[in-house]
Amino acid sequence: MLSVFLKLQVKFRLQVISLTLPQVRDRFDTCVCVCVCVCVCSVMEGDHITTLSTPVMVVDVDIVKRNAEKMREHWTKLGVTLRPHMKTHKTLECGDIMTGGSRSCIVVSTLAEAGFYADHGYDDILYAYSVPFDKVERCAVLAERLSLFQVLLDHRDALEQLRKRPLTDRRVWHVWLKLDCDNGRAGVLHSEPEALRLAQAISESEGVELTGVYAHCGNTYGCRGAEQIHAVAHETTTLVLQFMEKLKAVGISCKSSIGSTPSCSQPISDMAKLSEVHPGNYVFFDVQQSVIGSCGLEDVAVRVLSRVIGHSPHRNQLLLDCGWSALSLDGAGKLPTGYAVIEGHPDLRLLSMTQEHGRVEPLSGQLDYSRYPLGTLLTIIPYHACATAMMHSVYYVHSGGRLVGKWTPTRGW
Amino acid sequence: MLSVFLKLQVKFRLQVISLTLPQVRDRFDTCVCVCVCVCVCSVMEGDHITTLSTPVMVVDVDIVKRNAEKMREHWTKLGVTLRPHMKTHKTLECGDIMTGGSRSCIVVSTLAEAGFYADHGYDDILYAYSVPFDKVERCAVLAERLSLFQVLLDHRDALEQLRKRPLTDRRVWHVWLKLDCDNGRAGVLHSEPEALRLAQAISESEGVELTGVYAHCGNTYGCRGAEQIHAVAHETTTLVLQFMEKLKAVGISCKSSIGSTPSCSQPISDMAKLSEVHPGNYVFFDVQQSVIGSCGLEDVAVRVLSRVIGHSPHRNQLLLDCGWSALSLDGAGKLPTGYAVIEGHPDLRLLSMTQEHGRVEPLSGQLDYSRYPLGTLLTIIPYHACATAMMHSVYYVHSGGRLVGKWTPTRGW
Repeated sequence: MLSVFLKLQVKFRLQVISLTLPQVRDRFDTCVCVCVCVCVCSVMEGDHITTLSTPVMVVDVDIVKRNAEKMREHWTKLGVTLRPHMKTHKTLECGDIMTGGSRSCIVVSTLAEAGFYADHGYDDILYAYSVPFDKVERCAVLAERLSLFQVLLDHRDALEQLRKRPLTDRRVWHVWLKLDCDNGRAGVLHSEPEALRLAQAISESEGVELTGVYAHCGNTYGCRGAEQIHAVAHETTTLVLQFMEKLKAVGISCKSSIGSTPSCSQPISDMAKLSEVHPGNYVFFDVQQSVIGSCGLEDVAVRVLSRVIGHSPHRNQLLLDCGWSALSLDGAGKLPTGYAVIEGHPDLRLLSMTQEHGRVEPLSGQLDYSRYPLGTLLTIIPYHACATAMMHSVYYVHSGGRLVGKWTPTRGW
Repeated sequence: MLSVFLKLQVKFRLQVISLTLPQVRDRFDTCVCVCVCVCVCSVMEGDHITTLSTPVMVVDVDIVKRNAEKMREHWTKLGVTLRPHMKTHKTLECGDIMTGGSRSCIVVSTLAEAGFYADHGYDDILYAYSVPFDKVERCAVLAERLSLFQVLLDHRDALEQLRKRPLTDRRVWHVWLKLDCDNGRAGVLHSEPEALRLAQAISESEGVELTGVYAHCGNTYGCRGAEQIHAVAHETTTLVLQFMEKLKAVGISCKSSIGSTPSCSQPISDMAKLSEVHPGNYVFFDVQQSVIGSCGLEDVAVRVLSRVIGHSPHRNQLLLDCGWSALSLDGAGKLPTGYAVIEGHPDLRLLSMTQEHGRVEPLSGQLDYSRYPLGTLLTIIPYHACATAMMHSVYYVHSGGRLVGKWTPTRGW
């Protein structure tokens, strides 16, 4: 067993060379840092994931592909553009799977993601985040560089920021209006007169184009089962379509989009009247989505592998090497099984976590420690894949348990 | 205002060259990846932190130095070795401040930290984590490389793992026994006969040395005020010292150490009888520590800067660009002010967060939106600095609000 671990040791040697070059652009005091990272690591392709050092996040690429394919097929049939969200994984490889290799037509949640995907040849990127005033210039640079870079706003002051930074080369700002259809997220409230007035103002502004109306039914996360999801999807779709009618009545036509993995996994027929949908989590899914009713646990593509590192018989607990630094605190331990589901062990509850420890107890009765000797590998299905993925600087990707590669997410804002 | 932001834009150009070299070590199938990262970024030294793009974590280096100095002075006076924990920040620069530049005598929570500090010339490193079976070989490599690398265990099977991997060059495994003094963390229970027997087994094992007894009074985190902290510190210290007497009675002498920032910030006199203490969070502190009674809010060295990016008058809320991806969900929103304290705005509550949004509401009454136009900078004091720091791949360091540098933490396990 030890020899297997030996094979997996990873060694790093890092050398950083930093040098200052003359200013390369007028408006920046610029420093060029050249970082040479030489990473000597064992090739692991073909090895079984159970040989990995823990804690570690693993991704089943077959499930990822199946989830992506199913979503793509569904919306292709309905004639609605699928614009997948990258926020869950933030990797190039998973983006390629979600876009079917087109590297086009995506949504991102941070400008760091936008830059990352643009740098790798992606285009038609929607930065679906109320355009932050400190990032207008970075947005402008992307809008002047890509064929299509789109932004979003929900306030007149944000529109004013865009107007104050006209794009070069006769380009225009492509702007989505964020509408709050009683979803409890960002957006101008659909029923407020200001919503229509703001759409008109965008439409009439020089150098700015109203590209679409964007709603995110984040309130589907409170649903339990398809019926409740349908109800929210129906309400949001109806309100968006009603708003599109109002726009039409004042001579404005543009696209419409709604999102959330629950509504796009359990869609209603009226959603075929939308231009686009923008789910993201579906490529990984998680326990939360199974509780909501978006998927079954068999559709969840991610796991955190963890090992038993302690016995605490005086507390009737096991200690795992998976704390919140590997899983996140999302879900607040509200599941019957605590902070996650431990695969194949429905009798165990992940009761609590510190930075590097997970405390596990039986749902009832006394733990049989002979079943969990130190070193035992346990497979944890995360409550919220987006939150768990955020804790890992690399995901180990496998097919049928055999490693096929590593995905490195982008980080920052 | 825009010109200030302009100055701060960061551009990335990333090129990755990957090549495979012949095997360089017998037991590894090795691949050498050379990553050349050219990062063109604006020089920011001297700029005010309010010009930073948000969300961003900033560290007040003067408070860091003051916190470190105070802790070091206190324990020097008492004649107890301070072995600071690196887990909160995981950076070289902060480690240097905590060790007074000695680069010696530290505790780490992951083997990645141990390797990182060892690579930068640190020695006398204690990996204070029940030695995981999948990492014994990596521990052995460090133990054979450093003058002093120490491990910790609380189970006979872990001792067996060490015995099965004797160190070269007549070196011995330096082992701390983790004792649970009713602290609810890892460790063999102080009152169990197995505790003494395990200490004896370590002591008698060939190639292994019992270096010390280690307890972590993590239960101080449930305290409110100095009196309660003193009670826990007293109980843990007494139980450790009683255990040391038991060891003495069977002819064993070794070191003793207890930790936790609350107990080491509000110590009791008997702690002078210990060999070492191992707090960590104190260098940053946070809202949680101020609630516990370890510090005042004026001692907290870290902030997350955030900007208002939305108004939701229909919900009486502001939206911030700080979600759980920048702050973490630690604290579960239990503070009167929610998930954090918004500095200078005691009337505001950080009610909830999504991945990239924070929802803020007034403690009572209606929000006066004219006080918070879009773009307004708000300064957030984190509930738990360890958890917030984990969300950032870089910390911006300032003195009196003027940037003096960046610290880059290590990650992984």
